[in-house]
Order: sequence, then C-alpha cells, then structure tokens
Amino acid sequence: MSEIRRDLVKNNWVAIAADMALKPRDFPINKRGIERVGNDIYCPFCEGNEGSTPPEIYAQRNGGSTANAPGWLIRIIPNKFSVLHLDGVLEEEHSGIYSNYNGVGSQEVIIETPEHGIDLHEFESERIAVIIGVLKERYNVLSQDNRIKYIQVYKNRGIFAGASLEHSHSQIMGLPFVPRENSGVLDYYQKNGRCLLCDIVEQERQSGARVVYESPHFFIICPYASRFSYETWVIPRRHCEHFGDISGEEITDLAMVFRKFTRAMLYSLQDPAYNLVLNTAPVNVPHQPGFHWYMEITPRLLVAAGVEIATGIYMNPVAPELSAELFRNQLKEVDE
Amino acid sequence: MSEIRRDLVKNNWVAIAADMALKPRDFPINKRGIERVGNDIYCPFCEGNEGSTPPEIYAQRNGGSTANAPGWLIRIIPNKFSVLHLDGVLEEEHSGIYSNYNGVGSQEVIIETPEHGIDLHEFESERIAVIIGVLKERYNVLSQDNRIKYIQVYKNRGIFAGASLEHSHSQIMGLPFVPRENSGVLDYYQKNGRCLLCDIVEQERQSGARVVYESPHFFIICPYASRFSYETWVIPRRHCEHFGDISGEEITDLAMVFRKFTRAMLYSLQDPAYNLVLNTAPVNVPHQPGFHWYMEITPRLLVAAGVEIATGIYMNPVAPELSAELFRNQLKEVDE
Repeated sequence: MSEIRRDLVKNNWVAIAADMALKPRDFPINKRGIERVGNDIYCPFCEGNEGSTPPEIYAQRNGGSTANAPGWLIRIIPNKFSVLHLDGVLEEEHSGIYSNYNGVGSQEVIIETPEHGIDLHEFESERIAVIIGVLKERYNVLSQDNRIKYIQVYKNRGIFAGASLEHSHSQIMGLPFVPRENSGVLDYYQKNGRCLLCDIVEQERQSGARVVYESPHFFIICPYASRFSYETWVIPRRHCEHFGDISGEEITDLAMVFRKFTRAMLYSLQDPAYNLVLNTAPVNVPHQPGFHWYMEITPRLLVAAGVEIATGIYMNPVAPELSAELFRNQLKEVDE
Repeated sequence: MSEIRRDLVKNNWVAIAADMALKPRDFPINKRGIERVGNDIYCPFCEGNEGSTPPEIYAQRNGGSTANAPGWLIRIIPNKFSVLHLDGVLEEEHSGIYSNYNGVGSQEVIIETPEHGIDLHEFESERIAVIIGVLKERYNVLSQDNRIKYIQVYKNRGIFAGASLEHSHSQIMGLPFVPRENSGVLDYYQKNGRCLLCDIVEQERQSGARVVYESPHFFIICPYASRFSYETWVIPRRHCEHFGDISGEEITDLAMVFRKFTRAMLYSLQDPAYNLVLNTAPVNVPHQPGFHWYMEITPRLLVAAGVEIATGIYMNPVAPELSAELFRNQLKEVDE
C-alpha cells in the first residue's frame, strides 16, 4: 500500500510507493550520462499498443472503434506507476513520532494524440483547444469525488522536465489534501482583501518590463520572482478561481496563446525540455478567497541542485525582464 | 546588481542575477537531449588553468608554489557565476506589491583536487578528511561575517545533480537570511522540548528497518519521508547544532563512512548523479534550540517534474525500507 508520509524536518508530505520499488535499471536516467528517450523504442502510448497500458478511463474515438483498441484521438488512462489510488477513505496512521496518510488519490495520463513524434505545440490550435476541453472535463469529474481536495494538471515535456516517455501526454493528479505551496495567495488576500494575481496583472501592465504578450483573455508575463530561467505565466484576465470554470471562449484563446508562445519559446531557447502546470483553487474544502487559476510554463535549462534541494531557494541566472524582452521580440516577429 | 526577490505566491525567496543573463547556449543542458559534460573539453578547475578562475580565496599548496599558479592540493575560489556578493549591507527595497533584498552573500567553490577524472569517493579517506576539515574551517570563517545568517555546504556530482563541470568540487554558500526549509525541527522542539534528529535516531535504532550503517560517531538511515529515491542521511550521534563544531575524531569517522557508503551507493545504483548537502543551524541570529547538523546524500534518478514544481510534494517510487535494505546488504559485502 502506498503512503503519504509526513516530513517532519520540512513540514511537508512525500508520497511513497511503500510496497513497490523501482529497480535502478527502471529509472529513465541512470548512469551519469543519459539514455535518451528515443523515437525508435517501443512506446506504450502509440496506437495499436493499447494493451500495454491499464484500461482507458475515457477516450475520444472514431465511430465504430472499441475501448482499448485503435481508433482514438485522445485517451485517458490511469498512470501505470501510480502512487495514489482512489480506494477506500483517507486515514491517518501514527507510528512513534512519524505519521502518514494512506495513498488515497488519483494519477491519470492524458495521451494527447495516437501519433508518436508530434508535440502539443505542433498541433493546430483547434486541436489544442479540444485537449484543454478534455482536461477541463476531467478536472470537473474528479472534483466530484469528495476525497480529492486538490487537482494538479501538469505536463512534463522532455527528459529534463521529468518525462519518461516522449509520446506527447499530460497528467492530472488528485490529492487528498491541499498542498501549502501556493498559500501565499491566501495570506495576500487576508492582508489586503484583494486577489494577488489580479494585483500582479495590474502592476505588470503599468510597468511593462516583464510583459510578454496580451491576448483577448490572457495576460502573459515572466514573473518578478521567477524560480526558473525563462519561467512564464499565462494569467486569465477574468478573476476565476478554478481551472474547471474556464469558458469556451477562454479555451479557444488559451489554445491560440499556448501554441504561439510555446513555439516562440522553444525556438528562442533551442528546443528545451519544459513543464506546464496549472495552479488553481482547492476543491471540496470550505471556500477561501484569494485563488485565481493560471498556467505556468517552466523551461528546464538548469537542474535543481544541492542548494535548491537544501534551502528551497532557487538561484536564477536570468533576469525575468530579459526573458520577457526575448520572448516579446520573438512574438512580434511571428505575429502576422 | 543581483536581487533576492520575494515570491508572493510561494512565500519564499528567489535569488536572481538581475543584470546578467545567461544566453540559451550558456546552459549546460540545452536541446532536449544533452551535451555531456565530458573529459575532453577545457576544464577551468584543472591544474595549470588557474588563470581561468577568479583569484583564489584559500589554497593548500606545496612549499614554494605561488597563489593562482600550479602546485596546490585544494583550492577555494569565488563562484564565477555568483548571484550573491559580500558587498555592502543588506537592504530591503519595495516596488508596489513586490519587495527584494540586494544580493548580499557569498558563493564559493572548493576544488577538491588538481586532478581531473577522480571523484571525491575515490580518494583515500585521509584525503577526504582533509577536505571535510577545509569545509569546516571555511564554514567557521564565513560565520564570522555578521551579514551571513545561514551557511549551505553542498556538492553537485553529475549533470543530473546540477553540476556544470565534471572536475570534483563542492560549494559553500552564505545566505543573508535563514531559509524556512528545515523549520520543522524548530516546531518539533517547541512542541516536544526535544531534538527531532535525536528522536529520529532513537526510533530508527529501535525499528531497524531503515538503518543502513552505524559507525562510532554516525548513524546512517534512509529517512522515513525520503523525497528522493535512495535518499540517505548521515547523522552525528552527538547532539551538535553546527557543522562548524564537528570534532577531529568525527571528521576522521565521517570521511571513512562517506567513502564507504558512497562507493556502495554508486555501485548499487549504477553510478548515478548525486547531491550532498549539509543541514545545520543558522549563524548570527538569536539562538533557537532544535537544530542538529546532518549530511544528506540524494542520488538523482528522477527529475523533479511538474507535480513537484507545482505542489512541492515529492513522489518517490522507492520505499526507504527497500533502499536501506539494498545499501545494508551491499555494505555487509564490502565490510572487511
């Protein structure tokens, strides 16, 4: 059984697969070099290989095709190496000074295309919009399970972003508690009675130095305290707490903006690995004002090293003002 | 001028090189693959290349050799890409909702050997003891600067641990404030009136499941809430807050234990990248009981991915009980 163990030193939680152990050879990065995740190896996410994954939870399929067989456009499956499972109720256990929860939660993989070798940003924006719509739908289905308190949507692209498979995919995780990571937005609301993200948009618009792009529904910046070099936030202009409440018009706009920005970013930075994460409000907990969902895109040009692991303080060798300028100019060039 | 900027969302700090920007080509990992940090490229840490580094701060030298020239055994230099500098006094600046400190602090590199291609664990333990002694000495020198509040000693070995150079080296950073990362030890002391690390040693000794090795002065475990697969802690038996207070006997023992454990770990896990960090008490702040210094060794077999970046909660696919068993058995085999 998996466990979510309390880290007493760091006042945090760690999810541990307490009964299964990956062997050293199972890790995508072993040795000091790298075994590149290549195009030429067997891929369980490819059309025709549906039998290699756990049974699908959801799929968009061509008429006449059957579950767990070819003929799909998007496919959602449980993560095969899931540490969390929607099984039973959340229970806390104590053992001396230690404590843990059982591993109640969910980990799902969204296979974004049956085709290997094409990346999310290479799709037409209509197709990206369909995928964002599926993420929204799945977010709202998961939020109906009362055991889930926070839903994390994310994408790892490239081995330096933690992807173990190259085939284009995203992930969606349901956690049985609310991580403290973004609690600054609550503190800010308590202190100022205003939404931090709305205030950030306002101040950034006035200064302009960190603005990357503005679309009808989104405001794109390199944030003031970027943890990662070239980190970028895509913030909805409309104050909206839950990603699950994104509107149809916003989805269409976000797909266009994501495609445009990501292509410019990948071109400017010579095709780096990146993570995409959605920050959003908790679910199934008493309402606390202050959240405002937004998308964070973090190119991974440096590895979090000893100092970040030990202190939690990131060293960023690139000023966000310079990142924003780079992207702004690149986007001007591609703007028709 | 560098800045330490407040991250309002995460209630944390980020150190940013606000006037210098690495270009994409300057990053050790660009493209989605890797440019392996190899043996065959020019190395500024090699003997004879002293002119490629900033002037040395300290060196152990053969009689007759001169500063910043060949003839050294260990050499300490400022980090060439330092974000922090011991220059002026700490000042806070506000700009609308944002705030930052100026980049007061220090970043030094300890080049552990003039020879390229030999790693710390490959030295004789007498030589490792000399290096630990130098780290202690430098820790105590830095702690005399009242502007420094926390000293972080760490080592990045291999590109997946964030090393940009292969030549064996460690780093020592002086921060102008105390990171909140390990504040759980203070909470534990306040609540229980006891040292968390001493209590961990006591409980782990009784259970035995996560014990890796015991030496005269150190107790080695895979911690209960390991963030990283195969993470290992080397805890001094003696309750001692500051790494700077390590005794001569403890240094000798630690060198032996580090060498033995690291060789077993690298063999068992097929030569992974790893970080080594020293957790210790703050300096130049009013005394708060609860700290107990210890060494953390984290093999880097997985990259922190979207979920860790977003939630701060680590997913660890290897139970520490199984890691400890692997190392324990490996160490039994090598024990003479």
